[in-house]
Amino acid sequence: MIRMIEADDLHDIATGGAILGTGGGGDPHVGKLMAIEAIRRNGPVKLIAVDEVDDDALIAPACMMGAPTVMTEKLPQGEEIVIAFRKLEQVLGQPIAAVLCGEAGGLNSTTPFIVAAATGLPLIDGDGMGRAFPELQMVKFTLHGVSATPMVLADDKGNSIVLDTISNHWTERLARSATIDMGGSALLAFYPMTGEVAKRAIVRGTLSLAADLGRTLRRSRAKNANPVIAMQDRLGAVQLFTGRIRDVDRRTVGGFARGEAFVEGLDTDRGHTLRLAFQNEFLIAERDGTAIATTPDLITLLDIDTGEPITTESLRFGLRVVALGITCDPAWQTPGGLDLVGPRYFCYDMDYVPVKPAA
Amino acid sequence: MIRMIEADDLHDIATGGAILGTGGGGDPHVGKLMAIEAIRRNGPVKLIAVDEVDDDALIAPACMMGAPTVMTEKLPQGEEIVIAFRKLEQVLGQPIAAVLCGEAGGLNSTTPFIVAAATGLPLIDGDGMGRAFPELQMVKFTLHGVSATPMVLADDKGNSIVLDTISNHWTERLARSATIDMGGSALLAFYPMTGEVAKRAIVRGTLSLAADLGRTLRRSRAKNANPVIAMQDRLGAVQLFTGRIRDVDRRTVGGFARGEAFVEGLDTDRGHTLRLAFQNEFLIAERDGTAIATTPDLITLLDIDTGEPITTESLRFGLRVVALGITCDPAWQTPGGLDLVGPRYFCYDMDYVPVKPAA
Repeated sequence: MIRMIEADDLHDIATGGAILGTGGGGDPHVGKLMAIEAIRRNGPVKLIAVDEVDDDALIAPACMMGAPTVMTEKLPQGEEIVIAFRKLEQVLGQPIAAVLCGEAGGLNSTTPFIVAAATGLPLIDGDGMGRAFPELQMVKFTLHGVSATPMVLADDKGNSIVLDTISNHWTERLARSATIDMGGSALLAFYPMTGEVAKRAIVRGTLSLAADLGRTLRRSRAKNANPVIAMQDRLGAVQLFTGRIRDVDRRTVGGFARGEAFVEGLDTDRGHTLRLAFQNEFLIAERDGTAIATTPDLITLLDIDTGEPITTESLRFGLRVVALGITCDPAWQTPGGLDLVGPRYFCYDMDYVPVKPAA
Repeated sequence: MIRMIEADDLHDIATGGAILGTGGGGDPHVGKLMAIEAIRRNGPVKLIAVDEVDDDALIAPACMMGAPTVMTEKLPQGEEIVIAFRKLEQVLGQPIAAVLCGEAGGLNSTTPFIVAAATGLPLIDGDGMGRAFPELQMVKFTLHGVSATPMVLADDKGNSIVLDTISNHWTERLARSATIDMGGSALLAFYPMTGEVAKRAIVRGTLSLAADLGRTLRRSRAKNANPVIAMQDRLGAVQLFTGRIRDVDRRTVGGFARGEAFVEGLDTDRGHTLRLAFQNEFLIAERDGTAIATTPDLITLLDIDTGEPITTESLRFGLRVVALGITCDPAWQTPGGLDLVGPRYFCYDMDYVPVKPAA
C-alpha cells in the first residue's frame, strides 16, 4: 500500500481527522491550509503502511501543541514544524526515514503533511492515539515504553527548545509551560522510535480512515443521503444523543481549553439533557446525570444537517447536533491505558463507561 | 595571577559574594557547602585571570536559577550543574576551556566552583554583573551582544532542557517557566563565548574581591574592629541608613521573591524611615519617601554588629542593620545598561539615582 496524497485530498483528511479528533486536535481549517500550501509547493506526499518501514529506521511524529482557541487567532507559518523536525534529526545525529501523526485531529492529522511535503519523506498511515487527547504523554507509544524525548519545540518567532526528561509526564509538564510562553502554541517533533517499535506502538490506518470518512461524508451529502447516518455506519458508532446546544461554559486554564456544554434533547431525546465535559476534546457524556460514554472512547459531535464535526472551540448556542460514541483502540482499555487516559486521570470521579452498542 | 582555591577559602568567598549579591544571589550557606564538598572530593580549583584564556578558547558561566526562598528548602545535589555544563559542551560540539560566574551572590559566586572542581577546569576571576540581578539577560554579556543560548537547564530529578532563542529576554522567559516547573530552581550552563569576547564582556576580579571582603570582615571581627566600617572602607561604599527592621512584606511571584522592607532609623537616622524594595535583590532605597539609591548601584544590608550580609530571604523584624550604597560597574550606567537593569525595567517609576559620596 503506497498512495500519493495530493493537495485536494487534504479536505477529506482534515474533515475525517476532525471527526476522530472528538472535538479537539485543533481547527481543521488551519492545518489543512498549511498542508495544502506545502504540497502545492513541494509535490504530493507518499503515504505508506508502517510495515514498509525498515525495523532499524528511525521515525518520528510531528505535531502542534497548544490550546485550539489560541491557534485560530495565531496562524502558524508552517515552517516551524519543519525546523523542529530537522533539529530533532540533528540532536539524534541520524536521519529520520518517515514522519507520523501524533494524534488524529482536525489539525494534527494534517500538520505532518507539511513536514512530509517539505522533506520529501514518506508519511506513515497511522497515529499515536487513534483519536485526539489533550496531553502529550497520552499516546500508545507511552504504553510501549517509548520516551517522548529528545523532543524539539519550535515557535513562530525562531525560538526552539530541546527537552530531555525522565518521563513523558515530565515532558508534558515542561512542554506545556514552554508552549504557553511561546504564545499559546508550538510545533513539535518528538517520540523518535525505530520502525520495529513503531510497528507495535502505533494505531494503524488512521489517515486512510480519516480520508475515507471525509469522502463518505462528502458523497453522502452529494447524494442527499443522511450524512450523520453515513458517519455512524462507517465508524460503527452508537448514536448517544440528538439535541440543541443550550449552554457552553468555556475557559482556557493552564494552556487547555476546558469547559462543558449542555444539549437539550430533540426527537427521541426530547425532555432529556446531555452534558458534555471537555478538555480540548470531549471526555464525558452524561445523559440526565448518568454517564453514557467516557474517555478513552471517542465522543464526537456532528452537525445534525451537514454531518460536519463540531470542535469544542466552535460550540455555540443553538447548534443542532448528534453525539456519537465510538469504541477506542483496545490499548486504551487496558489498566495501563486507563491510568493514562481514563476519566480519573482527568479528575472525573468515575470509572470508564464503554460505549454500549445500540440495542 | 594563578591561585589555587582550597575548600577553606570558600567561607570568605561566599560571605563576600553575599555582600556583592545585594540581598540576592541565593543563600550563601547552600552554595558554600556544595562547593566545599566538591573541592574536598576533587582537589583545589585554579583561579585565573580572564587574560590567561586564549582568544579562541570557549568559556561558559555556570549558575543556579530560581527563587532563593525555594532553594533553602530544596537543597540541590551539586551534580546537576556539572551535567548541565557537560551537556552544553556536547551541544556546542567543542570542549569548554574555563568556567565563569554568571553573577556575584552568596550562592552563584560559589556554584561555578562545583563545576571547576568536578571537571578540573580553571575558574575565571570575574562574573557577568559585578553584583546579583534577578533575571538572566541582566549580564554585561548582553550589552556585548553575547547570546545566552545554546543554554542547558538541568534539575535534580534528571530532566534537562536545551534552549535556543532569538533574544536573551526570550531565554529568561522560557527558562523562568521551566525553572518553576522543575520545582523552583534549576542549574544552568549558558552564555558560551570565546576568550576574546570574555575579555571585553565580563566584570573582572569579582572572586578576588569577594574573597578579600570575606577575609577583611573576618579579620575585623577578630581584631574587635567595627566590621561595618571595614566593609565600607574596602568597598568605597556610602552609608545609606542605620536602623531596625520594622516590617517585611514578601511574596513569591512568577518564580521571584518580591517584596519590601521598612527600616526604622537609629542613631543619626532616628525619626526617619528607610523603605527597601526588592526582587530577589535590593533594588530601591527610599529615605522618607525620597530615593537615595537605586539599581543598578549596589544596595547591601549588613548586620550592625557582625557586618554579615543580610539576604532578602533572611530579612526579619527587629534586625539591626546598616544599608550601604556602592557604585556599580560603569557598563550599567550607560543608556543600554539602564534599559536592561535600571529602575524602570523593574516597573519603578523613577530614573536611576546614583549613590552620592558622603559629604
